[in-house]
Amino acid sequence: MIGGMGSLATAHFLEVLALKCGADRDQDHIPYVALSLPDIPDRSFAISTGSDRPFGKILERARWLESAGCGAVAIPCNTAHFWAPQLKQNLTITLIDLIDATTRVIRKQYRHKLPTLRLILLGTNATMEHNPYREGIGSCPAKDPSQDLRDLSEEAATLISDVKSGRIGRARRNLSRMIHDIRASYNPDVIVLGCSELSAISGNIADDEDVIDPIDILADASIAWWRKDR
Amino acid sequence: MIGGMGSLATAHFLEVLALKCGADRDQDHIPYVALSLPDIPDRSFAISTGSDRPFGKILERARWLESAGCGAVAIPCNTAHFWAPQLKQNLTITLIDLIDATTRVIRKQYRHKLPTLRLILLGTNATMEHNPYREGIGSCPAKDPSQDLRDLSEEAATLISDVKSGRIGRARRNLSRMIHDIRASYNPDVIVLGCSELSAISGNIADDEDVIDPIDILADASIAWWRKDR
Repeated sequence: MIGGMGSLATAHFLEVLALKCGADRDQDHIPYVALSLPDIPDRSFAISTGSDRPFGKILERARWLESAGCGAVAIPCNTAHFWAPQLKQNLTITLIDLIDATTRVIRKQYRHKLPTLRLILLGTNATMEHNPYREGIGSCPAKDPSQDLRDLSEEAATLISDVKSGRIGRARRNLSRMIHDIRASYNPDVIVLGCSELSAISGNIADDEDVIDPIDILADASIAWWRKDR
Repeated sequence: MIGGMGSLATAHFLEVLALKCGADRDQDHIPYVALSLPDIPDRSFAISTGSDRPFGKILERARWLESAGCGAVAIPCNTAHFWAPQLKQNLTITLIDLIDATTRVIRKQYRHKLPTLRLILLGTNATMEHNPYREGIGSCPAKDPSQDLRDLSEEAATLISDVKSGRIGRARRNLSRMIHDIRASYNPDVIVLGCSELSAISGNIADDEDVIDPIDILADASIAWWRKDR
């Protein structure tokens, strides 16, 4: 897997993977190589400014994993999946697509409410602007979507930045308050923790019925890939 | 770093590394390759039965990291350090030695109580039997050391096995109770969480003044290695 986007989120993904794989002893856990070279340019900033610079770095890492003998690549970063189609085109091994897997889970879990599901996505500015979870699913239940999204996006960006710089206590309190406010203001059907830094600090929040955690789903998809044909 | 001994402990080490490195943004975090191929034979069983089988597998992984361009290797597993001297002999890159680093911290932190420090080590059977933290430091403050060590060792082994198989809630409760009982029975100066699975579930326990967490120290040592000459 490609790590470093960010480093705490990488560790969290590996923790979820270890806890969910159902192994009874060390030897039955899932083998992996985590390549965490975090000097990939800021994905959200690049997308917002029309730059493809992170893509080259991500592809370089994916190809390194490919040549190291990995059978699939997982990337615990929602924003990086902006380049998922190009990555797939340039790899001979599987990209375990976080967005595809999460979209499938949302569609299945909320099938009776599609296509007008009231979905709130939290993530980096670029993820919230481009919302990869929107297609055919539903929309943001806001009064003034553009203004409400801007406010949420600013709050989410502060939270994500707090996690990346280790201000975990503050980030946890703010995420909890933010989820509470979102429920009160928008009454959404589902809130997606669309940034792996949010997943990393979500704790019990991710267990709530109306919360979707893509990192949890990526772990399930990775385990399913590993088990397939074994 | 070499992971998979065990997988949850690997994720925990990477989490501590991310939290302690003091980075403000993704790009300033420490780069690493985590090679987690967990099919290394049980270290404790091998040591207890006089087998060197795990050593070959661990060396193979260390050499792979060496040829991948890593400048140092960290192994978040106390028991595996039984083979640290041979590993160092067979590598051209640094092994960031968990046992050495922890011993240095204990010697510094408790220098006024040496060499009769009352130290209780928890870990795998082999780690507790061979106690790598004993030399020149102190001894087990037990009434009947052989019997008391056997009882503690059995309890610790159950705990470690619970962590490896994902029974985290039970393991946490039992570790907390065990630490409480140890304080009441032996009044030690220091309790060493000498297995990375114990570190992984220790939570607030690791912050107690009389508790030493080698994984926390390994993260500090890894960060110090990375910062040196940079």
